Amino acid sequence: MAVYTEVPNDALDAFLAAYDIGEVLAVKGIAEGVENSNFLLHTQAGFFILTLYEKRVQEADLPFFLALLEHLAARGLHCPQPVKNRRGAALGRLAGRPAVIVSFIDGIWVRRPDAGHCAAVGEALALLHRAGADFSMRRDNALSLAGWPPLFHAVEKRADEVMPGLAETIARELAELQRLWPADLPSGVIHADLFPDNVFFLGGKLSGLIDFYFACTDALAYDVAICLNAWCFEEDQSFNVTKGMALLNGYERVRKLGEAEIAGLPVLARGAALRFALTRLVDWLNVPPGALVKPKNPVEYVRKLRFHQNVGTSREYGLFR
Amino acid sequence: MAVYTEVPNDALDAFLAAYDIGEVLAVKGIAEGVENSNFLLHTQAGFFILTLYEKRVQEADLPFFLALLEHLAARGLHCPQPVKNRRGAALGRLAGRPAVIVSFIDGIWVRRPDAGHCAAVGEALALLHRAGADFSMRRDNALSLAGWPPLFHAVEKRADEVMPGLAETIARELAELQRLWPADLPSGVIHADLFPDNVFFLGGKLSGLIDFYFACTDALAYDVAICLNAWCFEEDQSFNVTKGMALLNGYERVRKLGEAEIAGLPVLARGAALRFALTRLVDWLNVPPGALVKPKNPVEYVRKLRFHQNVGTSREYGLFR
Repeated sequence: MAVYTEVPNDALDAFLAAYDIGEVLAVKGIAEGVENSNFLLHTQAGFFILTLYEKRVQEADLPFFLALLEHLAARGLHCPQPVKNRRGAALGRLAGRPAVIVSFIDGIWVRRPDAGHCAAVGEALALLHRAGADFSMRRDNALSLAGWPPLFHAVEKRADEVMPGLAETIARELAELQRLWPADLPSGVIHADLFPDNVFFLGGKLSGLIDFYFACTDALAYDVAICLNAWCFEEDQSFNVTKGMALLNGYERVRKLGEAEIAGLPVLARGAALRFALTRLVDWLNVPPGALVKPKNPVEYVRKLRFHQNVGTSREYGLFR
Repeated sequence: MAVYTEVPNDALDAFLAAYDIGEVLAVKGIAEGVENSNFLLHTQAGFFILTLYEKRVQEADLPFFLALLEHLAARGLHCPQPVKNRRGAALGRLAGRPAVIVSFIDGIWVRRPDAGHCAAVGEALALLHRAGADFSMRRDNALSLAGWPPLFHAVEKRADEVMPGLAETIARELAELQRLWPADLPSGVIHADLFPDNVFFLGGKLSGLIDFYFACTDALAYDVAICLNAWCFEEDQSFNVTKGMALLNGYERVRKLGEAEIAGLPVLARGAALRFALTRLVDWLNVPPGALVKPKNPVEYVRKLRFHQNVGTSREYGLFR
């Protein structure tokens, strides 16, 4: 749940005066989204989402995110569309924060995805990769191979508080991944955080993707690896190969994975598991007093990492070819 | 901010199947309301608020609250209107909790009310009292005179942690109020919690009242006293007599206060200040680990209590007659 910033009424009125969406009729903080403050905004023109970017999102990255949403929406992808003000700008300032109004996307995120949902998300991910192919801006992935050691060093001394031996496990894995990480895979725009709460469904069909604030330029197959981690494990952290197969087949209905991508998938999946284990570990060990967001347990991703360490080939994820 | 209960998608679908408002298009937890879990609900019929009642609201009281909302709405008061299902019931069960769907009320609550807002809320309070005059159900006020000693006993030993001498201050005030509390004042339905976050404005005009979950049968002038506490003090806890005058004049445009009510107002205001000091004190000293709601500081209401203790007549609140 997250509303970090209160918006004074007069500041909101002044902000909206630059837009052609009429007067504000209602605004309610939304208890979703961990990184930013989100508000449901009702104006005379309809319902919107107002996002205030908190410190975790770099202001310099916002033009990339907003241009990407416009680019993807223009290519038919269902994602929030930034609303431009009368000067043609999507990005404004409100309550001392960068602020954006986007379209309201209907749909509900699935708490317990089944194989059908996995197939749909696989397909949507490939459509996203295809739609992003001609996007001209680029943004390095700060949370890939080079970004992990600094995260680890920030929590190394306290990692064993969470799980005995964890610091050693991570140190060893970091060294391994430096050695094994596949280079020169097909690259482009990736979502990089396509967890179930960022994928909406309506009547059993995927209705939209949201939360592009980790989107960046990286190996497309790494995005697939993130989804395998986020969608295909059961609550006991066992991998469900039926879901894996559904997700990978869904993806390949739109975009075939190349040989190098298939061969690299187990290592990419290890990297993805480590990435979420590390960021969760940092959050877990740094809960500010009075925090409104309960941090997610990093142990889940350590367990997933162990699974991937024992995977030999992508067949074990359900890719039978 | 408050969403205490997660609603599984299939449970929501099953719940909504009993209503004539179409299929669910979106549901988002709202970061408002301290007592219950609130969700913005978008269905094919429009936007609604879905409320799940948490333990602080007694299930046996819900028929009173829901009937009251219907009664008031039927008399033209702008308040959330319960949506009935096909069996004609407004009250259902969802995720193990009593659950209700109400209409979505547009409007924004005012963070810094001015005298104009105070006048509007005074008038709305009197309209509420008038509309409630022929409401046949009754509910005792559990948070009036008889309800305060048990609250005090629950925190007596630790009250001085919050403010030195506080236990003694409260004990003495409780004894005083038992002696001074006015009996036989005109009574009826009162809101009993009409704070600024429960009053919506649109374009400078009051657009609706919400959150009737403390509503009960009690002295009407006690409701006025609660509003004087909630609306007419500045941030430094000084009483703003211009706002007091505006609120009282606004009230009296619709319903004149009687002599006994005017004479009793300072004592009622002391009681109201003590009531909020006590419930805040209980919350302040009992923050559960991992709490999502930051408790409000009780000291604000102890300061207000001290102000009222020094008030001689209602003239000091701005009632000049």
